[in-house]
Formats: sequence, C-alpha cells, structure tokens
Amino acid sequence: MLKLYYAPGTVALASHITLAESGADYTTERLDFKTNQQNSPEYLAINPKGRVPSLVTDHGTLTETPAMLVYIAQSFPKAKLAPFDDAYTFAQMQSFNSYLCSTVHINHAHKMRGPRWATQESSFADMKAMVPKTMAACFKLIEQKMFRGPYVMGDQFTICDPYLYTLSTWLEGDSVDINATPKIADHFKRMSDRPAVRKVMDAQKA
Amino acid sequence: MLKLYYAPGTVALASHITLAESGADYTTERLDFKTNQQNSPEYLAINPKGRVPSLVTDHGTLTETPAMLVYIAQSFPKAKLAPFDDAYTFAQMQSFNSYLCSTVHINHAHKMRGPRWATQESSFADMKAMVPKTMAACFKLIEQKMFRGPYVMGDQFTICDPYLYTLSTWLEGDSVDINATPKIADHFKRMSDRPAVRKVMDAQKA
Repeated sequence: MLKLYYAPGTVALASHITLAESGADYTTERLDFKTNQQNSPEYLAINPKGRVPSLVTDHGTLTETPAMLVYIAQSFPKAKLAPFDDAYTFAQMQSFNSYLCSTVHINHAHKMRGPRWATQESSFADMKAMVPKTMAACFKLIEQKMFRGPYVMGDQFTICDPYLYTLSTWLEGDSVDINATPKIADHFKRMSDRPAVRKVMDAQKA
Repeated sequence: MLKLYYAPGTVALASHITLAESGADYTTERLDFKTNQQNSPEYLAINPKGRVPSLVTDHGTLTETPAMLVYIAQSFPKAKLAPFDDAYTFAQMQSFNSYLCSTVHINHAHKMRGPRWATQESSFADMKAMVPKTMAACFKLIEQKMFRGPYVMGDQFTICDPYLYTLSTWLEGDSVDINATPKIADHFKRMSDRPAVRKVMDAQKA
C-alpha cells in the first residue's frame, strides 16, 4: 500500500492524479501548511526537506515529483504511463518533467517563496511582480516547442499530463491567461473532465 | 554518435563526465557564454531554451541534465550507471538528481542569474548574499540524509556521482567550505582522481 502526503494547491497534485490514473491502492494524508505542519518534527522524520509530496512505499519513502511519477508508472505498468522500453522517448518525457520541475515550478515559487532566496521585502515584491511574465514565457515555450497534442507526448497519456495539468492550475493565480496558449487550454479542459482527475480534485477539496 | 554542447563551469560537466564514464562514442562543442552564443539563432534552433547542456542523438536532441544522464545510462548498459530493473532504487537515484536540479542548482543560480527572477540591482545583491547560506544548507542535508558512501548511492558508482561532483565544483566560488561536509569532500577528491573525470576536466580547460 502506498501513502501520499500532500497539501492542496501544491505540486503534490501531480502525484495524486498519477496514483489515481495508475490503478494503485493508495491512501493520502493532508498536511496543513497554515500551521507549518510540513516542518513539524513528525513530518521532518518522513521528509527532512519539509516539502510535499512524499510517497511512503513498502521499501521506504520517496520525494521529488519527477522521481515519484516514474516510480508509480514503473510499479503499475498496465496503466502504460511511461515508455520504459524506449530510451529516447523516455528521456524526452523526463526532459519535459525536469523542465516543469526546475524552471516552471521555480518561476511560480518566486511569488510566495521569496524568503528561500532573499531576505528583503523589496526583493520579494520584485520577484513576485515578475512571475506573470516568466510563467507566461514558459507556457508559450511549452505550447510552441514541447507539447505534441492531444497529450504532452502525443497520442499516449503519460505522467507528463498530470504534471502539466497541475502547473496549469496555478496560471490564474499567477495572472497568466491560459487561453494565450490554446493547446494547453484545451489540454486543461480535457484533463479536468477525466474521472481520475475529478476524483482527486474532489478529494483535495473535501 | 552523440554530440554534447557545453560551456565550462556549467552543469553540462555532469553529462560530459557521464559520457566519458559510459564508454560512449561522443564529440563535444563548446559554447562561448561571454558572447552569449547560447542565445544565437543557430543554437536556439538546437535548444530553444538557450541553455546547456544539449545532447544531439541519432533520434533528436535532448535537454535537461536528469533526463540526459538516464538516457546515457540506459543507452550504455555495460557501464552499469543506473539500476533500471529496480524501480525503488531507480526512484531514489532520480530523487537525488531531481533535488540537485530543482533545489541545489537553483540556489547556486541566484548568485549570477538574478535577472531570471527579478529586475532590481538591490534584489540581485540580496539574492547573491544568501547563496553561501543556502548552498551550505543543501550540502549539509545531502551529507546527513542522502549520501550513503563511498558513492552517492552506496557501493555502486551511478549517474548521481558526476552530478554531485559537478555541483561540488561550485562550492568554493559560492564561499562554502566543502570540508564542512567531510563525506562529500572525500567524494570530491576520489572523483577528481578518476581517469574519466581527469580527461573531461582537461578537455574543458583546453
């Protein structure tokens, strides 16, 4: 049995949806970021980084979204969420996820997480003001150079899709118009209608 | 034949060393960051992100270090650089690389790449001043919670090792004393003595 630690509004949504799509048996535990539960001694014993998501497995605990998504796909191969027998296509999928992780998510994080990288209120405001521009630029690049359609990697639904969907849910709050990237806007609508996505969104709101 | 685009002093070193360790046939092409060659029309046609590394393969071009390292390991299995038949261990390896990519490298980038996330000189100075603290904290966490020894993943040399080595080469410039993390300092020394690492370091300096 797998157990996912998450908080609503975070990147943990990507792993949550991937679990639901995979057919895995799993449970979830919600952390309360308002009371800083992610930095409690109990949670730091699970994930010393004090972040979500964490995935408790029979072997131990995994962290970092790109690693967890591949782990879920590899553990539940019937769902065909990643092409493990094709090194180049697998690498393209990993490249996409790595871009989301290390560029797009990081740009978004400069809206609320300025204290990770600076100390002054003026720096935080400066960072925050730039987020709509950097996020719009990332999504334009994804739309024009990476997204194949109808899914990220083409005809096959993969672990890239819940991850892109998750970051797409942040656009409105980042003052970015998703309709400026019509292929991603269409992807967002289709993803929102998937039974697994509806189930997870309802669970996270409950 | 594989072709790696790199620039000295960048994260491309991790892929360069991994290529040398893998036994692959490869060529390299150096970009001149001083003349902003990474944003030339010729290079943007290869990698529209304007970053290094890029790896040109017979199938197409790959970007993003974590994806490239796995691709090299999967393409040259005799070098045993990653455990593809063990989903959990593979995920731990990917988790380590993802942490380097999305947290450690990002902290380092705030020294010189402030304009990615802000616009004011005061913000850049604020970000730059915090780098020694954030980088030291990351390496402490790696030393205490992630590094197994003698290699990152234990007895087996993997793609995590060139990646950690590459980020370790940045510590002195980031005003972090590597000897505060003795296991990583020892790893750095042993890595520096590997024939493949010497060959690559010489090639990048030539």
